[in-house]
Amino acid sequence: MEPKSWRESYTEHKEIVVPPHCNHHGTVFGGHILSLIDQVAGVAAMEHCGSPSVVTLSMDRVHFFRPVKEGQMLHLQARVTFTGQSSLEVHVKVYGKDLADPERAPWLTCEAFTTFVLVDETGRPVKKVPPLLLETEEDRALFEAARMRREARLAEARRRRLSG
Amino acid sequence: MEPKSWRESYTEHKEIVVPPHCNHHGTVFGGHILSLIDQVAGVAAMEHCGSPSVVTLSMDRVHFFRPVKEGQMLHLQARVTFTGQSSLEVHVKVYGKDLADPERAPWLTCEAFTTFVLVDETGRPVKKVPPLLLETEEDRALFEAARMRREARLAEARRRRLSG
Amino acid sequence: MEPKSWRESYTEHKEIVVPPHCNHHGTVFGGHILSLIDQVAGVAAMEHCGSPSVVTLSMDRVHFFRPVKEGQMLHLQARVTFTGQSSLEVHVKVYGKDLADPERAPWLTCEAFTTFVLVDETGRPVKKVPPLLLETEEDRALFEAARMRREARLAEARRRRLSG
Amino acid sequence: MEPKSWRESYTEHKEIVVPPHCNHHGTVFGGHILSLIDQVAGVAAMEHCGSPSVVTLSMDRVHFFRPVKEGQMLHLQARVTFTGQSSLEVHVKVYGKDLADPERAPWLTCEAFTTFVLVDETGRPVKKVPPLLLETEEDRALFEAARMRREARLAEARRRRLSG
Amino acid sequence: MEPKSWRESYTEHKEIVVPPHCNHHGTVFGGHILSLIDQVAGVAAMEHCGSPSVVTLSMDRVHFFRPVKEGQMLHLQARVTFTGQSSLEVHVKVYGKDLADPERAPWLTCEAFTTFVLVDETGRPVKKVPPLLLETEEDRALFEAARMRREARLAEARRRRLSG
Amino acid sequence: MEPKSWRESYTEHKEIVVPPHCNHHGTVFGGHILSLIDQVAGVAAMEHCGSPSVVTLSMDRVHFFRPVKEGQMLHLQARVTFTGQSSLEVHVKVYGKDLADPERAPWLTCEAFTTFVLVDETGRPVKKVPPLLLETEEDRALFEAARMRREARLAEARRRRLSG
Repeated sequence: MEPKSWRESYTEHKEIVVPPHCNHHGTVFGGHILSLIDQVAGVAAMEHCGSPSVVTLSMDRVHFFRPVKEGQMLHLQARVTFTGQSSLEVHVKVYGKDLADPERAPWLTCEAFTTFVLVDETGRPVKKVPPLLLETEEDRALFEAARMRREARLAEARRRRLSG
Repeated sequence: MEPKSWRESYTEHKEIVVPPHCNHHGTVFGGHILSLIDQVAGVAAMEHCGSPSVVTLSMDRVHFFRPVKEGQMLHLQARVTFTGQSSLEVHVKVYGKDLADPERAPWLTCEAFTTFVLVDETGRPVKKVPPLLLETEEDRALFEAARMRREARLAEARRRRLSG
Repeated sequence: MEPKSWRESYTEHKEIVVPPHCNHHGTVFGGHILSLIDQVAGVAAMEHCGSPSVVTLSMDRVHFFRPVKEGQMLHLQARVTFTGQSSLEVHVKVYGKDLADPERAPWLTCEAFTTFVLVDETGRPVKKVPPLLLETEEDRALFEAARMRREARLAEARRRRLSG
Repeated sequence: MEPKSWRESYTEHKEIVVPPHCNHHGTVFGGHILSLIDQVAGVAAMEHCGSPSVVTLSMDRVHFFRPVKEGQMLHLQARVTFTGQSSLEVHVKVYGKDLADPERAPWLTCEAFTTFVLVDETGRPVKKVPPLLLETEEDRALFEAARMRREARLAEARRRRLSG
Repeated sequence: MEPKSWRESYTEHKEIVVPPHCNHHGTVFGGHILSLIDQVAGVAAMEHCGSPSVVTLSMDRVHFFRPVKEGQMLHLQARVTFTGQSSLEVHVKVYGKDLADPERAPWLTCEAFTTFVLVDETGRPVKKVPPLLLETEEDRALFEAARMRREARLAEARRRRLSG
Repeated sequence: MEPKSWRESYTEHKEIVVPPHCNHHGTVFGGHILSLIDQVAGVAAMEHCGSPSVVTLSMDRVHFFRPVKEGQMLHLQARVTFTGQSSLEVHVKVYGKDLADPERAPWLTCEAFTTFVLVDETGRPVKKVPPLLLETEEDRALFEAARMRREARLAEARRRRLSG
């Protein structure tokens, strides 16, 4: 398979926070952000794989730093950082932005490392994920860091199976 | 006010078409696409104006060329093409894309010219829309075409008032 | 086919504007109204055709005159104005109404001319749209105006194809 | 207060049944129909009272006769049948209709008698419901039947309080 | 079939009331509660029948006693009270709870007796509802009361057919 | 403050998987499950704190083991496992269940450790989380494991700040 740059599948999403996604203090629900992360990362994964048959495998720890409020903007940016044979990692950054206050710089509200697996019609993994093109120093550093996160995930999975 | 390039507010949105947005033949509703156009164009207008207080004024004729089906991708691209003192035009292109069929090129399903007006707390127009930076030949051509669409809209509004 | 009066497919919809369909100034989104127009006009088109296999073809320019706010009522009225062999035009008027202020008359917030096409299982146009019964002077005047809008649409489509 | 005919507040709603409102056999959820009944009856009650401050008080037994399926049409018709000083009854008929099978007549899927109360800002009942104009024999018969349903409801409420 | 205790299918649901489910006074819509009742009772009925093929047959009169407001909690409790051969009754209690005011005890906002029928692939009733295990005095009293409600429903259905 | 048992805030949620929450293979979206986890854990946190003013702080890695399909049941169980002064941990187990196949035991589709913080009107942490009553050996073991997860989270946060 032809290697592909992360640029070909890079995906963004912006939305203004509306009342149905907020608690009664006007702060957006964590669960709404998690659902958006899965959607935007999923689109990036599908674009990279050239297939809609992509299923969420895991989401690493997400920590919510600073809240985003009703009327402010959520801005998500999803970038493929690692590819295995049948799975891939997508890194998502989520920013808040206050359009009514141009002085205030956009702030990172959370980030997430999500993994997806490419499956066939019966839901079984398929070894057809195109390799990621590593062009820059940054690409290689992100790939290496992703490889280490992957090993941590596999080690955790092994630990669980032993103790489970 | 400092002029701004359309690049600063350019907004995209991608989503996989899901059943609740389709008729029973599995074709996405025109109304769902129109609602997405308004959302994505609205975000671009807000970003350009640096304010969330932006209200939809009009949408020019939308013609649906080729349908998009369940499981395919909708890809919207919104670009500011014209600014007046209190209003602006945003052009939205909507593509369909079949991730399961890489041979098939993305197709234009429709495009729309939407206008927005910047308002104050009481909903009245405010003359604070930053002018659009015209850097390239294309920028100028799009601006000129938008100016002509605007005159057609104003002429129609005048006709209606006379006949109404 | 037996001609049918517009009265047989006339469709109305009323709803109270709720927060999820409003921006943070409490004004209903243009995109929500466009989506409702498509739904209500679609029901009228299906009723006229006696078939659910009806797809949106176009929506002419929509201009939003006066806003409708949270707690006020949206009232849509859809009427078939023209029929071809495989397509038809539906005219939708959208009124705002303030139930809390009986002194204020309902106001036109926008109107739209939508066209639909009757399709078969494979999505291809079918020449089975029942002709529209023209009973009154008004019916004939609306039909004639619709015929002219249709020619303008076809001319625009031709222009695009030549320049495209 | 000026008496008002039920015709002034008569409200209809039609929609094509879509997948999100169906179980996996393609039959619309009873709960979706109950929610629509409350919405359509609520609009009729608001129109009659000339106020959006109307709250659901009760819904009499609803029996679902024949199911409505995905792709078929739901058609609700709401008519005010009785008015007290601060409350009113709205009768809703819900029909199914199969647009793809013109031979089949629309069928009653259920009907409901709902009551609403007109309230002030603090949620307390207000004695300002306009009386219902009884013009025809049918109007009077429906009013009388509604009066008897109301006494049955009050008797039940009394029974509960005694036994509660 | 093995009899089953109501405990095996007992189902609860709690949710904080959010703006999209409220009128503009911040009170939850009756229709939203009715839709939740149908969902929660439906899950209990499916659990008891050991099958997802369960369809709503009726909901007895629901009277809304005291409102629940935005930010407060809705707490639904569904319990199977009666089983026939192909149908069953589920009793649902709906409480409001104000988490911000611990002094205030949860209050009953409404209760409902719903009936469901177990169906096969073609939608026809199936005589496979497991009998309800009556272990305590309370179980037997609830069953007996449910049996009487059922006869009242059947008598009403007969009356309608005679007069209809 | 009076210590509280986890039993007082234990929260469950069951729902049948419907098409709008599934991809086109009929598998529920990971993002929908993550959003449900946040809702159900949030309700447990609010119940424990006796306050709706509770905000999501983090969600530890979630790994999706076995998929849940349209028509199957999702069953979530949320239990408070740890309390600090202004924050608390809630453990959520998510099971799939196939009501149509009684032979198949419910399966764990994923589990999550979520943390929440109790805040005041301005969104600042409040040291008013009631301590968790540790009654059984299991309670103490879960609390101890949660304390260790918390230290891992704090260490990670410190690492980030140093490297950030």
